[in-house]
Amino acid sequence: MNLEDIRDPHFLKTYETEQINKLAGEIRSFLIEKLSVRGGHLGPNLGVVELTLAMHKVFDSPKDKFIWDVGHQAYVHKILTGRASQFDTLRQYKGLCGFPKRVESEHDVWETGHSSTSLSAAMGMAIARDLKKTDDNVIAVIGDGALTGGMALEALNHIGHEKKDLIVILNDNEMSIAPNVGALHNVLGRMRTARKYNKAKDELESLIRKIPAFGGKLAATAERVKDSLKYLLVSGMFFEELGYTYLGPVDGHDVEDLIENLIYAKKTKGPVIVHVLTKKGKGYEPAEMDKKDSWHGVGPYKIESGEQIKPQQVGPSYSGVVSKTLEKISHQDERITVITPAMTIGSKLVDYGKAFPDRLFDVGIAEQHATTMAAGLATQDMKPVLSIYSTFLQRGYDQVVHDVARQNLNVLFTIDRSGLVGADGETHQGVFDIAFLRHIPNMVLMMGKDENELQHMVYSALQYEDGPIAIRFPRGNGLGVPMDEEFEKIPIGSWEVLKEGDDVVILTFGTTIPMALEAWEILAKSGISARVINARFIKPLDSKMLNQLYAENMPILTLEEAVLQGGFGSAVLEHAADSHANVMIDRMGIPDCFIEHGSVTKLLEEIGLTTPDLVNRVKELVKRKTEKGLLT
Amino acid sequence: MNLEDIRDPHFLKTYETEQINKLAGEIRSFLIEKLSVRGGHLGPNLGVVELTLAMHKVFDSPKDKFIWDVGHQAYVHKILTGRASQFDTLRQYKGLCGFPKRVESEHDVWETGHSSTSLSAAMGMAIARDLKKTDDNVIAVIGDGALTGGMALEALNHIGHEKKDLIVILNDNEMSIAPNVGALHNVLGRMRTARKYNKAKDELESLIRKIPAFGGKLAATAERVKDSLKYLLVSGMFFEELGYTYLGPVDGHDVEDLIENLIYAKKTKGPVIVHVLTKKGKGYEPAEMDKKDSWHGVGPYKIESGEQIKPQQVGPSYSGVVSKTLEKISHQDERITVITPAMTIGSKLVDYGKAFPDRLFDVGIAEQHATTMAAGLATQDMKPVLSIYSTFLQRGYDQVVHDVARQNLNVLFTIDRSGLVGADGETHQGVFDIAFLRHIPNMVLMMGKDENELQHMVYSALQYEDGPIAIRFPRGNGLGVPMDEEFEKIPIGSWEVLKEGDDVVILTFGTTIPMALEAWEILAKSGISARVINARFIKPLDSKMLNQLYAENMPILTLEEAVLQGGFGSAVLEHAADSHANVMIDRMGIPDCFIEHGSVTKLLEEIGLTTPDLVNRVKELVKRKTEKGLLT
Repeated sequence: MNLEDIRDPHFLKTYETEQINKLAGEIRSFLIEKLSVRGGHLGPNLGVVELTLAMHKVFDSPKDKFIWDVGHQAYVHKILTGRASQFDTLRQYKGLCGFPKRVESEHDVWETGHSSTSLSAAMGMAIARDLKKTDDNVIAVIGDGALTGGMALEALNHIGHEKKDLIVILNDNEMSIAPNVGALHNVLGRMRTARKYNKAKDELESLIRKIPAFGGKLAATAERVKDSLKYLLVSGMFFEELGYTYLGPVDGHDVEDLIENLIYAKKTKGPVIVHVLTKKGKGYEPAEMDKKDSWHGVGPYKIESGEQIKPQQVGPSYSGVVSKTLEKISHQDERITVITPAMTIGSKLVDYGKAFPDRLFDVGIAEQHATTMAAGLATQDMKPVLSIYSTFLQRGYDQVVHDVARQNLNVLFTIDRSGLVGADGETHQGVFDIAFLRHIPNMVLMMGKDENELQHMVYSALQYEDGPIAIRFPRGNGLGVPMDEEFEKIPIGSWEVLKEGDDVVILTFGTTIPMALEAWEILAKSGISARVINARFIKPLDSKMLNQLYAENMPILTLEEAVLQGGFGSAVLEHAADSHANVMIDRMGIPDCFIEHGSVTKLLEEIGLTTPDLVNRVKELVKRKTEKGLLT
Repeated sequence: MNLEDIRDPHFLKTYETEQINKLAGEIRSFLIEKLSVRGGHLGPNLGVVELTLAMHKVFDSPKDKFIWDVGHQAYVHKILTGRASQFDTLRQYKGLCGFPKRVESEHDVWETGHSSTSLSAAMGMAIARDLKKTDDNVIAVIGDGALTGGMALEALNHIGHEKKDLIVILNDNEMSIAPNVGALHNVLGRMRTARKYNKAKDELESLIRKIPAFGGKLAATAERVKDSLKYLLVSGMFFEELGYTYLGPVDGHDVEDLIENLIYAKKTKGPVIVHVLTKKGKGYEPAEMDKKDSWHGVGPYKIESGEQIKPQQVGPSYSGVVSKTLEKISHQDERITVITPAMTIGSKLVDYGKAFPDRLFDVGIAEQHATTMAAGLATQDMKPVLSIYSTFLQRGYDQVVHDVARQNLNVLFTIDRSGLVGADGETHQGVFDIAFLRHIPNMVLMMGKDENELQHMVYSALQYEDGPIAIRFPRGNGLGVPMDEEFEKIPIGSWEVLKEGDDVVILTFGTTIPMALEAWEILAKSGISARVINARFIKPLDSKMLNQLYAENMPILTLEEAVLQGGFGSAVLEHAADSHANVMIDRMGIPDCFIEHGSVTKLLEEIGLTTPDLVNRVKELVKRKTEKGLLT
């Protein structure tokens, strides 16, 4: 069958197992081929080919609601719902989204990107269904990793209590983005091996029937023994305790087993857990054999050899620089520990963990716990470092406010993937961190102009012991600047003049510094003398330098790769207002909307954050200033 | 013993059970008496008298770390650590804090207010201890309600995995702030009744030994049957599955039972759960008999009769107005549902629940789940209302961004206790919501000037179907204005001129409106003509009105009972900058620090948000404007 001819999944209703298996093979080949060109989440999708087929066979999407937790495993679902022909544009600008997207298809009923939201969404939909008295099925597909996220556990608890008809498919691949963490994982491990007890169960039941005593005074106990069989068999006990009917474990690559269990789940009243064992990367040997999870999300690769084609990078990765710097300093300072919520690999902390196995804590997908555990460490005079992606720190917002900043504890936040991240799109853009951290009392927030300044910032932040401090850094690789051998202490709240100029000042930091330097040259050629300042501290601002600018009556342009509302530019506006400065301030940054997927370059063009945009805005500002000058 | 003579808890080491019981009685009398005057968290503290005494008897605080989840149950701990004499100032301005406070005592090692943080904090402290190779005990005391919070579950999972020496005292009073919700609660319920199985266990063990078959081919099965006894007995199974040693249930009012179990817990390696059953309000009949949890946090009361002395209020409570309005509209609109995270009573939703039992969802302490469940409902064309305290919405920040606003779903947030809350102090001040919501795309945010406008806002928000919309309202009671019979639709983004004036404009909303009106009169007497605008939409701003002000060259003073950084005033600054308006703007609001407990009046004085402050700031602004006018 030509996958691109599929319009909707209805055809599966008449498909026999054999046909489905054949189709599964075709989908795998399609995915392996398509993703080899541009990359994508290969491993997770190869793992759910049969599961997705079985779901579309047994249920009727979109009447029945499929909710994909995290959502990077929805490629097969996209193929079966008529989107195979768009796979050449996957994760590209204006192309097919790498996650479920409601505008793409009526079969995408819930959008994700962050983990652990599916059960809450499913519960909302199940409540809506019951109030509307319709009979659609609600099916959430959640990985074993996502299940450790607090909100999934909150939902698990509530669903078990409310006894709504709702199916949770636990996609258990023994690995979330990285090998799993947590006691729950151990529970799942025991369930996985529960099958061998099946025979024992039959033996025992017959045995108990034979015991004479059970007919007599121990009858009540016998009842309990019967109950206890369930526990004895381990399987499902944990979830059954919570109020779920437990089905499984099911072989996630056995279509018949899957279909049988899904049909049973559909018939069962109340909440059901279908525990499905899948293999990430199934059907593509390099991915299947992958122990390091390097096939979770990939760039282009050579199909035959499985060689991943890494783009040429100029400098070292920012994450790597942070990790290496932490490692260096940890040799000197025993108080440093590093905490990551399931991003040991993503944040390049593997080597740190090897060097300091008892000082790296991967707590699993648990950003709230990670943040407050850091606070707990800090109360004991330790120097915890929370290594976390900008977008995931959103999950720890209250913990930053209530536990870290309110107690003014020395926690260092190294905020990875701040700014636009590109292909992962709107759920992953790290553009809110300034706005949600800047208003928190006691917080210090900074961003370096390059990887060299970044290492000095990590060093300086670890010297700082007056409360929480955060360093943003972007996704990807540095500029390739020389790295100083010796660490340098950067004074808190100090900015740096990079280029002198008298007509106008550009205040910016991080990734937009090169743009400002380019603009400086172009402006110079037009006769405009711009000062470029590395405003590396977003909080506190460099008051001295700002006051100097006010005194010089310099028009100011602020530039940031972050949301404008409540951002760095607003901080400058606030400072100027509080200083009663009569100064012209213009702001460039990310407008008040969510930014979809695409290359960062494309996205910056779309929102007007390029060198020509900057040059134009500076010229306009200078023009306005001149006009105003003439007026007064 | 005179409680005020206690300096530290060391004296308990030599105390016998009888003495401890006597002391428990004295502490109860002390609490009942002291709290009758000014109020406080009576119920929770009466419940933990024996537990706290046993803890201080068995452990050595502050070397051993006591971490009180939520923290409102730490009064007994405060008494035993030398603070009885300060109880007359409890929860008063500059007085004893109602929660643990590190500056108060070295025995307070962790500050709280929000729920579910204790396990993460304890884990951080346990890690620190092990890295430092010291041997202190870390003991977290967490209620059964707080345990349903996602971050506590994240921590429970991580601790079970890491096997750190750490003691969790589960203070199970079958009631958090309100009757508990969730499957976990059912699990606890089964544990509570597990004692009756103890005898059955002995019977069964002896029975199994007698079965001949177990000596033969079924030996392996027998081993499993033996294991299964544990499960059979229900007790602790859930926690033991997660990797904990489970002790209990322990009678939380039996000092000997408590001490025995705590000593055992202290000796046990790895994480331990001590399941303690307590009774909220124990020892004070009116509180003990309380089914509505009205003795959780109380104002003054008459000791003998248990009559609670309610202060005279002018208008109806804001929460009540919202709840009643929702109820009225729900009769017409079947799509409305209301979700509360354990605040059915606090947000006055009891009557709503009676009127619409299948449309009110109390999900327990689970703000993340509550937010995303609302989003799930909204995808199905329902009109979910998330009723939530401002300070607790901080927990749902990522869910507001990622699930609600990003998908632009019609969720109405009714944000209770926005602004300063008074006696609960810095953990509960609802002062960040503008700063953390305003920068979220698609969000509409408003606040009414009184309870009448509030009802119209609820009505208007439920008419709005273009995405998320939020209404802030303060703690406490309205102004006593007449309530319109008919609802009125307030146009989104529309402000309202309350007083005309030409010299200066005061832009404010909500609780600070009366202050502005007062200032208007005072200013008029000084010959300053101020315009007062009810800036009821914080987002979007009323652009038309702002442009008019710019055209009139009016100096603007913004006033808000919320943090200045990234707040409403900043929004006005942003608007003016983006409009290239050459206008003087001054901002009043909450400075960049955490605001401690005390009456709202006192706090407003402290931070300079009173009518005289406002009058002075307006005068200064007008003076600056005049000087500038003379200059140009």
